[in-house]
Amino acid sequence: MTYCVGMVLEKGLVLMSDTRTNSGVDNISVFRKMFHWQVPGERMIAVMTAGNLATTQAVISKLEERTKHPGERETTLLNGPTMFSVVSEIGKLLRTTIAERQEANGARGKGRFTASIIVAGQIAGMEPRLFMIYPEGNFIEASWDTPFFQIGETKYGRPILIRGYDREMSLEDAVKLVMVSFDSTLKANLSVGLPLDLMVIGKDEFAPIHQHRVTHDDAYFAQISTNWGEALKSAFHSLPGYSFESG
Amino acid sequence: MTYCVGMVLEKGLVLMSDTRTNSGVDNISVFRKMFHWQVPGERMIAVMTAGNLATTQAVISKLEERTKHPGERETTLLNGPTMFSVVSEIGKLLRTTIAERQEANGARGKGRFTASIIVAGQIAGMEPRLFMIYPEGNFIEASWDTPFFQIGETKYGRPILIRGYDREMSLEDAVKLVMVSFDSTLKANLSVGLPLDLMVIGKDEFAPIHQHRVTHDDAYFAQISTNWGEALKSAFHSLPGYSFESG
Repeated sequence: MTYCVGMVLEKGLVLMSDTRTNSGVDNISVFRKMFHWQVPGERMIAVMTAGNLATTQAVISKLEERTKHPGERETTLLNGPTMFSVVSEIGKLLRTTIAERQEANGARGKGRFTASIIVAGQIAGMEPRLFMIYPEGNFIEASWDTPFFQIGETKYGRPILIRGYDREMSLEDAVKLVMVSFDSTLKANLSVGLPLDLMVIGKDEFAPIHQHRVTHDDAYFAQISTNWGEALKSAFHSLPGYSFESG
Repeated sequence: MTYCVGMVLEKGLVLMSDTRTNSGVDNISVFRKMFHWQVPGERMIAVMTAGNLATTQAVISKLEERTKHPGERETTLLNGPTMFSVVSEIGKLLRTTIAERQEANGARGKGRFTASIIVAGQIAGMEPRLFMIYPEGNFIEASWDTPFFQIGETKYGRPILIRGYDREMSLEDAVKLVMVSFDSTLKANLSVGLPLDLMVIGKDEFAPIHQHRVTHDDAYFAQISTNWGEALKSAFHSLPGYSFESG
């Protein structure tokens, strides 16, 4: 499995993904699931993937190739006039990649090669935007009502995101929040694993203002993990006690 | 869906279940998923169910009938010499109930009528014990390494159980812990809903020392839900801040 979170805030976008892929518990590997492309001063587009690795790698490779062939640039990441057009293009690519593989494998393969993608980015003159693309190629955009997307193993880390998110929080606090969400997931599910990739995209910067890979010896993540356990315990003890008489 | 938690502690057993059943989001009902049987001073056995409602109701009805027909009492809840024998019996009943339904519906029905069951209880002269029965009829017992079982929609409420559980905690604190776990689940998943059934079984009491139904106007649960949001936020703010320089 996978866990990726993308979050839109007033000050920009925060993205985090794990790197574990597994086909059974005895076949685990590390693969990057976060990718980005930029045109300095003009656009910054980041993508995170979950699902069948062969499918997502094929999609990323095709996106990569397109950035390198000027003749095809009309419909690429680097030339789409809006985030909407860029995301439509990636959605089409995802849908056709899955469809090709499923056709090649007959009905038997139905549902097997699916994947989902989070796209985050900004193009000059427009706001930072965040999208989630379904295996069918259609997609939804984050709003102030639903300001973050998760793909993969989403449930363990969701309650803290629901409780902790605030659109006006600093980008540093948003990073702290996704780290706590990842810590809860890692503690409960072996299929999500370190290292984690972090990227922060500042509004109107058109570049990652911060990138970091959280590895096993990351002092900050270790501190969050330890302190969160303690902080949760104190939070728990601060709640009013239950009484068998009044209950 | 469903969410049930059973927890074994030094001082006894704590059980909580929701009551929502749904077949699509437009067909929701309230059904009790927690049941118990007792022989005063000798045994106390509680059962919580998740999965296909027709299957679990059939199992419970058959268990109920057996308690009422003295001729069949050899293999019943009320006469099994150990918790192990009682749980084996329930497991057999679960497996055959699922198998009958699946056979009647041919291969098409495969996997559709499954259910899982948590069994908690104590028989005089033995320790309180906690089991989880799989649809196949086999089962596992809780240990000090894995001191609680969840069935149904288990993921949202798992991180806090992992972090908050302590075998020596009071039964009141254990109730508070499962309430927080349920609150996190209810906040994130519509298929788990109020009212909630709570039961506390004290060690060597052979009776529920506390039973309570948490409804929409339950003051304590509302307080936990509100305060937990606040407590989580303070816990979050108490964590060390992330810095883009050092990260």
